[in-house]
Amino acid sequence: MRSLADDDATMQSLVEAFFSNGFTTDNPLITEAVKRMLAAGGKRLRPRIALLAAEACGGNAAEHLHLAAYMELIHVATLIHDDVVDRAQVRRGVNATAVDYGNRISVLAGDYLFAWIFKNVTAGYAPPVPHILSATLASICDGEVLQLRGLGRLDVSLDEYVEVARKKTASLFAASAQCGAIVAGGTAAEIAALHEYGQAYGIAFQMRDDLLDVIASQRTLGKPVGNDVRERKMTIPIILALATGDVAFTADVKRWYHDGEEQAVAPILRGISDLDATSATREALSAYVVRAKAALEPLGASPARTELQKLADDLVGEED
Amino acid sequence: MRSLADDDATMQSLVEAFFSNGFTTDNPLITEAVKRMLAAGGKRLRPRIALLAAEACGGNAAEHLHLAAYMELIHVATLIHDDVVDRAQVRRGVNATAVDYGNRISVLAGDYLFAWIFKNVTAGYAPPVPHILSATLASICDGEVLQLRGLGRLDVSLDEYVEVARKKTASLFAASAQCGAIVAGGTAAEIAALHEYGQAYGIAFQMRDDLLDVIASQRTLGKPVGNDVRERKMTIPIILALATGDVAFTADVKRWYHDGEEQAVAPILRGISDLDATSATREALSAYVVRAKAALEPLGASPARTELQKLADDLVGEED
Repeated sequence: MRSLADDDATMQSLVEAFFSNGFTTDNPLITEAVKRMLAAGGKRLRPRIALLAAEACGGNAAEHLHLAAYMELIHVATLIHDDVVDRAQVRRGVNATAVDYGNRISVLAGDYLFAWIFKNVTAGYAPPVPHILSATLASICDGEVLQLRGLGRLDVSLDEYVEVARKKTASLFAASAQCGAIVAGGTAAEIAALHEYGQAYGIAFQMRDDLLDVIASQRTLGKPVGNDVRERKMTIPIILALATGDVAFTADVKRWYHDGEEQAVAPILRGISDLDATSATREALSAYVVRAKAALEPLGASPARTELQKLADDLVGEED
Repeated sequence: MRSLADDDATMQSLVEAFFSNGFTTDNPLITEAVKRMLAAGGKRLRPRIALLAAEACGGNAAEHLHLAAYMELIHVATLIHDDVVDRAQVRRGVNATAVDYGNRISVLAGDYLFAWIFKNVTAGYAPPVPHILSATLASICDGEVLQLRGLGRLDVSLDEYVEVARKKTASLFAASAQCGAIVAGGTAAEIAALHEYGQAYGIAFQMRDDLLDVIASQRTLGKPVGNDVRERKMTIPIILALATGDVAFTADVKRWYHDGEEQAVAPILRGISDLDATSATREALSAYVVRAKAALEPLGASPARTELQKLADDLVGEED
């Protein structure tokens, strides 16, 4: 049988078909809100990684579409809540859920989606999958709270940054790869390898996300450029730019992050590229891409493993 | 061994001791926010019902404190999110979490708490307990969305009202009683009886909550009187008052629920008592209390069963 990993488009279309036809909840309004968000796009990286991990362990991706979908839906539920707390207007190029449905429905839709996922996962998957998914959600929230506490704190270290990225972003990629391996009956070594891949991939993914926020165009990003800086987030380009010790740049950052002078946002964004913090970010990111690919070594050669390597390499490709 | 149900104060103090000393999460800020909410009080009805259900099936309450605590914490997490979406200022007589910690932390604290509960439940309890708890949370959210959709809709029927109350409120009482019975090794008949008790108890509890909103003092309630009416909720006293067909009252209700004339709120609250809708609510509530007690018949006589009956009777006691 031909592996789905030979044809990433087929795997994506299986996932999309599942979201279009297989996703429904008991509550029509929530189903509509979630489908609207799914229809707005997204690269479905978490389900793809789950399915590739399953295939890399000898499984058949088509049998694990539900699990893959739950990974994307956990992500969607966290995005719905993020947009409420961030008062975001736009997500993936369309109105944020809270804009069209209101904050009340958005908070409830996220809660319902979490509950619906766990209800299905506890009904359909043996331990430890339900536990991994709930621990992952706890980790995501923990990371987001840590990030909130770091807002505007100019002394956030690179280690602290990586810890937040690991919890908030990488944990779900790690769980996707790990659970894909588990449901496919992977060995303990394969499961650990794929977990490690997902974690390194996820940290690199967050670094690239931070980088795109300062260099991409609004069209590419689907949300405003410089958004992270406007939210006073301590992203990796900011941390690395501050680390150069440039006095004028540090003064600009303080003007906005500490004193709230909005005129400082544009000089900060310019400063980041002038100081080559974007190159330094690319280097840090590349190191995690190398780690992600190295993590795959215990696995035998397979089209799925090659595809996972390619996904990691994509993170160091052109950003725009 | 003396049953804890002989001494409800002992059972309560066990639950309180667990919250004071046994509750901690990986995130100090979230632990603090949740403990602050727990310290503000509450009758701990859900954990008490879980523990009494366990004892009614021959179990030992002291062995099931974790399960009981999770029931209260699911309730606390939904309250934290409710207060965000309702922009509530006060809860249980103290500032709402969102007032002291902000909306962002409140949404994340609720999410984290849900995840933390499921993480612990999936690690510590065999099927079907994790599935029941996640299905219950889905039901609560579904009920809240249904209620939001009914806001200001004057044609909400008593059946629709009961359906919302069953999902939004009674499901957690039903799950508490049901899971208490399950972990104590109750028979299928005992588990079903206690589930039925919890469901009828919960519907009666919601009716009493609605009643208190129109007749209690702010001191007793810990939140403003007439709050439900101000939020245009279709509570049972309003539904029964409208059912009398009183033209002046219906006009007052339309002035506020449809046209947003705030001056109509006071006449609505007066109208509800003038029309004896409060007595009609007490009758409806009593019928569910009778059903709750009748549901306990399959259980053998025990101090715990007597205490469960007493808890149901308390719902028809003096309101102020």
